[in-house]
Amino acid sequence: MGKVESKVENKTEKTVEKKVADKKPVKSRRPSRARRSSNELKVIPLGGLGQIGLNMMLFEYGDDIIIVDCGLMFPEDYMLGIDLVIPDFTYLRKRADKIRGVVITHGHEDHTGALPFFLREFNVPVYGTKLTLGLIKEKLKEFKLLKKTKLITVKSTTKTTLGCFEVEYIPVAHSIADGVGLAIKTPVGTIIHSGDFKLDQTPVDGVLTDMHKFGDFGSKGVLALMADSTNVEKAGYSLSEKEIGRAFDDIFRDAKGRIIIAAFSSNIHRVQQVLDATHKHKRKLILNGRSMVNNFRIANELGYINVPKGVIAELSDLPKLSKYKVVLLTTGSQGEPMSALTRISLNDHKQIKIEKNDVVVLSSKFIPGNEKSIANVINSLYRRGADVIYEKVSEVHVSGHASQEELKILMNATKPKYFVPIHGEYRHLVRHSKLAQKVGIPKERTFLIENGDVICFNKKSARVKGNVEVGKVFIDGKGVGDVCNMVIRDRKHLSEDGIMIALLLINKRTAELSYGPEILASGVMLERQNEKMIEEAKELVKQMFNGLPTEAKRDIAEVKTEVSRCLRRLLNRKLLRRPMIFPIVVEV
Amino acid sequence: MGKVESKVENKTEKTVEKKVADKKPVKSRRPSRARRSSNELKVIPLGGLGQIGLNMMLFEYGDDIIIVDCGLMFPEDYMLGIDLVIPDFTYLRKRADKIRGVVITHGHEDHTGALPFFLREFNVPVYGTKLTLGLIKEKLKEFKLLKKTKLITVKSTTKTTLGCFEVEYIPVAHSIADGVGLAIKTPVGTIIHSGDFKLDQTPVDGVLTDMHKFGDFGSKGVLALMADSTNVEKAGYSLSEKEIGRAFDDIFRDAKGRIIIAAFSSNIHRVQQVLDATHKHKRKLILNGRSMVNNFRIANELGYINVPKGVIAELSDLPKLSKYKVVLLTTGSQGEPMSALTRISLNDHKQIKIEKNDVVVLSSKFIPGNEKSIANVINSLYRRGADVIYEKVSEVHVSGHASQEELKILMNATKPKYFVPIHGEYRHLVRHSKLAQKVGIPKERTFLIENGDVICFNKKSARVKGNVEVGKVFIDGKGVGDVCNMVIRDRKHLSEDGIMIALLLINKRTAELSYGPEILASGVMLERQNEKMIEEAKELVKQMFNGLPTEAKRDIAEVKTEVSRCLRRLLNRKLLRRPMIFPIVVEV
Repeated sequence: MGKVESKVENKTEKTVEKKVADKKPVKSRRPSRARRSSNELKVIPLGGLGQIGLNMMLFEYGDDIIIVDCGLMFPEDYMLGIDLVIPDFTYLRKRADKIRGVVITHGHEDHTGALPFFLREFNVPVYGTKLTLGLIKEKLKEFKLLKKTKLITVKSTTKTTLGCFEVEYIPVAHSIADGVGLAIKTPVGTIIHSGDFKLDQTPVDGVLTDMHKFGDFGSKGVLALMADSTNVEKAGYSLSEKEIGRAFDDIFRDAKGRIIIAAFSSNIHRVQQVLDATHKHKRKLILNGRSMVNNFRIANELGYINVPKGVIAELSDLPKLSKYKVVLLTTGSQGEPMSALTRISLNDHKQIKIEKNDVVVLSSKFIPGNEKSIANVINSLYRRGADVIYEKVSEVHVSGHASQEELKILMNATKPKYFVPIHGEYRHLVRHSKLAQKVGIPKERTFLIENGDVICFNKKSARVKGNVEVGKVFIDGKGVGDVCNMVIRDRKHLSEDGIMIALLLINKRTAELSYGPEILASGVMLERQNEKMIEEAKELVKQMFNGLPTEAKRDIAEVKTEVSRCLRRLLNRKLLRRPMIFPIVVEV
Repeated sequence: MGKVESKVENKTEKTVEKKVADKKPVKSRRPSRARRSSNELKVIPLGGLGQIGLNMMLFEYGDDIIIVDCGLMFPEDYMLGIDLVIPDFTYLRKRADKIRGVVITHGHEDHTGALPFFLREFNVPVYGTKLTLGLIKEKLKEFKLLKKTKLITVKSTTKTTLGCFEVEYIPVAHSIADGVGLAIKTPVGTIIHSGDFKLDQTPVDGVLTDMHKFGDFGSKGVLALMADSTNVEKAGYSLSEKEIGRAFDDIFRDAKGRIIIAAFSSNIHRVQQVLDATHKHKRKLILNGRSMVNNFRIANELGYINVPKGVIAELSDLPKLSKYKVVLLTTGSQGEPMSALTRISLNDHKQIKIEKNDVVVLSSKFIPGNEKSIANVINSLYRRGADVIYEKVSEVHVSGHASQEELKILMNATKPKYFVPIHGEYRHLVRHSKLAQKVGIPKERTFLIENGDVICFNKKSARVKGNVEVGKVFIDGKGVGDVCNMVIRDRKHLSEDGIMIALLLINKRTAELSYGPEILASGVMLERQNEKMIEEAKELVKQMFNGLPTEAKRDIAEVKTEVSRCLRRLLNRKLLRRPMIFPIVVEV
């Protein structure tokens, strides 16, 4: 469906090349170690293209496969009862011995969260920067995978050889520290993978997106650029993370009581700015929420945050501290039901109760799908007397993803022959490919592909050639993939109108009712209000059964069908509802 | 919880009055017809304060009650299987003979949608402008209530006497034509109700919000202003509806194929602008979607739209028309599952299939909670090859609600003694009350109330005095209110992990198992993948039963408890899931 068959054969290519003056010929700088028979590079997204989350990209040449990122997705509304979603690893199962390693661009869950499930099946090394691996270690510990997994720390000067591939790391600014883009040298040319990035000229940690290095690869010749499409709908430039510092400064200056800030625990730069504002305004910072405490510890141990002396207090100190002194940094900015902030808003948090003059800051995005939950938290906080400050009314959040002008800058710096928009819903990918056209990358050289589509690159051309099995694998409790769409459909049906169970026991000898019909319901209606209807249902089913010819009475399948039909009609007529009907008919 | 007990007694009031120089003393201009014993005006919101939707405000003095608006709410995600939500009419049931009428400010469903349910119980006259009543008639026809309901058309010059109340109508600009604000003269003073409004200096129909009339009441003395809080988070001024015309003009000029526009069918001004652009660019307009066709017909019949000759074509003409000639105006801008646009995006619409060069315009807001559905529609349209234009990337929508500066203008024009923010979530009401403070309405004179809170006004003071029963009544199929939170909780439980049913028949004589355990499941897992577990479950339940002492075996309640416990443990251990367990134990 909608697969774009971009064929750029020799001939087409040349005519196109004329139009793009600054394209350099792509030279192969490394001899291929792969078998001669398969001198094509296959690039296959297993997730993240045509959706938000599940980022996982595969590069295959001959006998070597490397994987970039291995992310999860949080379940959408329709995925009833599902805890997490991970990519489908089917394609890799038959090729497990080819996998040389997984390279992780940064420590966000949509890039790392499927790793434990992946590593349970595939014992291969994982490459990442110090903070990225620090966060991954925590996850692997939980899954008891830390000991058996080889983790290799990389930095901006590292060159990693993985089979026929050589990977270099390019620092990028993002809403988590220590993110990198990748330059993947392959036997057919260099591929640039942007990772999640933005151009921030005043990053909190001073680490700029290394445009010079991107440009270096550009001048040496880039076969293809794969770039982050998340914010392609936004015109202009993204704001610097440092702008938040100013907003915090205003809030801290005006606050007459405690300040409670909710943010993503992985946003180390944001945490740093909270630390700085706390210190500047002579307050004490208390961390709250498991992931906030953990991520702070990891970032601190690894030297990614600078903690002014004496600024940290413990939650147990809270009663002792004057409220002019307290800043609480907590999780739950998305209104997650069990998070610290939601519990605070519901007066359900053991240590933290909202008091008059408390200011609560949601320093985070309203992620689509979470608006209602976030609004509920804000409303509840207001009802308890707090003042609440959030993205819609104050500049307390900036995005970690590049806007249109930044995306253009990356394209112009890397001067790719081919362009592959990644990391976005389909609309983002379309808009990103149109943006590429504006800077001179023609449509014919842009691969508007989705998960599973295979792009084959050789030294002369590139084209989409078929696709492989991909999908969303649902994690529900301990089950990985055993809840499929059929199960979800049943849950959906149950969720809308509940279930009605009818039990009939039939005397084997006489073929008459020996017990029942018993009618039970859940989620259909309030039974005590509907006793009359239940009685009517029983009577109807009984009459229906008694009216059946004896042969039909002995046919259990037939009786079940008739019972269902009978109840379905009644419920439709009386209530206009369609619960799941579950007839149980047993011969005794 | 969080109720604000605003007591403004004589004394406090005077001290406050000094601060607000431009406040006029409130004179009672009309003699009270009510009994001397209850010379207080009660104002009670039955819906719309602390939530979006369900707008319904009640004014009670002596033996007279009037109601302003009677709206519905579309169900939130957690309201599983619910079709609609209406306010709780409990308070009115004991006072039905006091109700003098319902005054409707405009024709949107969140102001009119509960009318059919209300009018089934209370046969009172309904007052509204021509278009508002035109839309209401359509609804009442459906519910077979049209004949028995007295509908009274009002205009800007009408004065309606309803018991001791006199209502005047003040034209306001909004995203539907023919909206009004109200001046309600009561025995204790005049109350201004803004309705849903914005200040649009260039409205499509030329009907401005009548600030002069608001100002007239202001100079005569306004007891209280109740104003629309929807967009209080937005700084500055809202854009004029006419701005959309420009965006349409650009889109129409550039379109190489058909143009498909999705909009709210009640947004008559938007429809007019589509008509105008279609005419200007020499295309033909085809209307699609039941509510679009109906509302167009009503607005046209009543003279609210100006249809250029020959511009309308029928859907059946579509195959005959050149695609350069076609504009389709359709419903479904919120990604509603059964709407025309969603079906088009899924290639599931009989007459309309997406073709190359089609441009689809979503001329509407991304209503919070609908983002995912809207994004799905946009992605699907892109996948089918259309270009898609929407609020986030182009100015194809403006809001119908006033921004901060407009809200201030209304306050300054009406110079109310008291201020009551209405029509918004709690956060909006809080922010609106803070905005009022900026223009000099002190906190003590602002009533930050929610549904059910009763404000009592007399000639000297006003205060919140207790509250009445209010709530959300769920409509599910034909049932009104029979699905309560307990039923919703069951549906929620079923939706997360499904249901497992265990059937055991016990021999009455021997107290041994005569049939079963039979185990059935739905929504828990894929049964054919889990045969082994089902077998294990049967075995476990059997062993458990056989291990019970004979007396326990005869105690059906006990057996049920044990069966549940047994299965719950197994499912938790094996799958970490908690389906609803439904043990059925019968003695035979």
